[in-house]
Amino acid sequence: MTTQNLIREPDNPGSGDLRCRILSIAERLFRDLGYRKTTVADIAAVLRMSPGNVYRFFPSKKALNEAVAARLLADIEAELERIATQAGVPAPQRLREFLATLHRLSTRQFTANRRMHEMVEVAMAESWDVVHCHITHVDEMLCRLVAEGAKAGEFDVADPMAAARCVHTAFVRFCHPALIAQCADEVGPTLDEMLDFLLAGLRAR
Amino acid sequence: MTTQNLIREPDNPGSGDLRCRILSIAERLFRDLGYRKTTVADIAAVLRMSPGNVYRFFPSKKALNEAVAARLLADIEAELERIATQAGVPAPQRLREFLATLHRLSTRQFTANRRMHEMVEVAMAESWDVVHCHITHVDEMLCRLVAEGAKAGEFDVADPMAAARCVHTAFVRFCHPALIAQCADEVGPTLDEMLDFLLAGLRAR
Repeated sequence: MTTQNLIREPDNPGSGDLRCRILSIAERLFRDLGYRKTTVADIAAVLRMSPGNVYRFFPSKKALNEAVAARLLADIEAELERIATQAGVPAPQRLREFLATLHRLSTRQFTANRRMHEMVEVAMAESWDVVHCHITHVDEMLCRLVAEGAKAGEFDVADPMAAARCVHTAFVRFCHPALIAQCADEVGPTLDEMLDFLLAGLRAR
Repeated sequence: MTTQNLIREPDNPGSGDLRCRILSIAERLFRDLGYRKTTVADIAAVLRMSPGNVYRFFPSKKALNEAVAARLLADIEAELERIATQAGVPAPQRLREFLATLHRLSTRQFTANRRMHEMVEVAMAESWDVVHCHITHVDEMLCRLVAEGAKAGEFDVADPMAAARCVHTAFVRFCHPALIAQCADEVGPTLDEMLDFLLAGLRAR
């Protein structure tokens, strides 16, 4: 079976420019065929264009992988931003929802699908910049959230930024794709036990 | 240059049985040449014996790697056990020293030497049982330590075992070889900030 038979581009692609369509097809092929098995020619074939046309937008398969990863991470970050900035919700409650969502979306996007995990491993090995940007962005949101809670007297911490970074680092087993997979069968706290512990560390009131 | 020229087995190997000598040479070669480049024949040559003699003790290079890793991890565990069971030292102080030592020894043994890191990566990919035993052993020591502190009123935790596992999991960035390497350039708390935060989570007195 050819890639073209596997995934057909709808005749009416709707809105969105060509770059977006290339990315969407790339993501679907990475997810369905696996990153290593997917070629730029496969992606071009689904879009009924020449590989050269894809290369106009993405000079390499690595660049495509980075763009797909960046888009998935941006989706996660948008949802986290929404949670972090909810008006009228106490900071401890927002933090709990923020971390639970970070765990749920990271698991769903990057480890639930074994083929997607392959793409993630390649991105983490070859395109750390994309991962670094995501870590930094999540870190900034957490720092703001903890600082707000400290200001409101909901957290009792001497250095909100250091505390936020401790929370983020302490949570790595629940949001790092390799660790989510690696630790699945190890003894360890549940998500709720971990959230209780982290809020205790912030002396949440 | 041959492996024999690089590392010469002393004429008087001193005490220790043949199995131990094979392990010591294997560890030195993994450290100096790299795991992938070292062959069982190299190890046998340094010991001036036939590869068949090595295979009598270790049926494969993988088995050798597991035994080398197990020995290094046992050394770390022995030092941690000593710290965890110090008489007359308050539990919060023992816990702090325990975690700092776990970080220091993990860094020194597994990531300071780039070639050793290669052996660790292979062990983590192919011999998870050895890693699992280590995680479980460290976990048991931490559970005992936190339970002792809770009993003495030094920690204020409802479930000492869950709290200990939260501490262990929260510390993964400081003891997991891949994370120590991967997070080296990322924003994050210092070791001391993390230790303060974890002790706050246990509501240490």
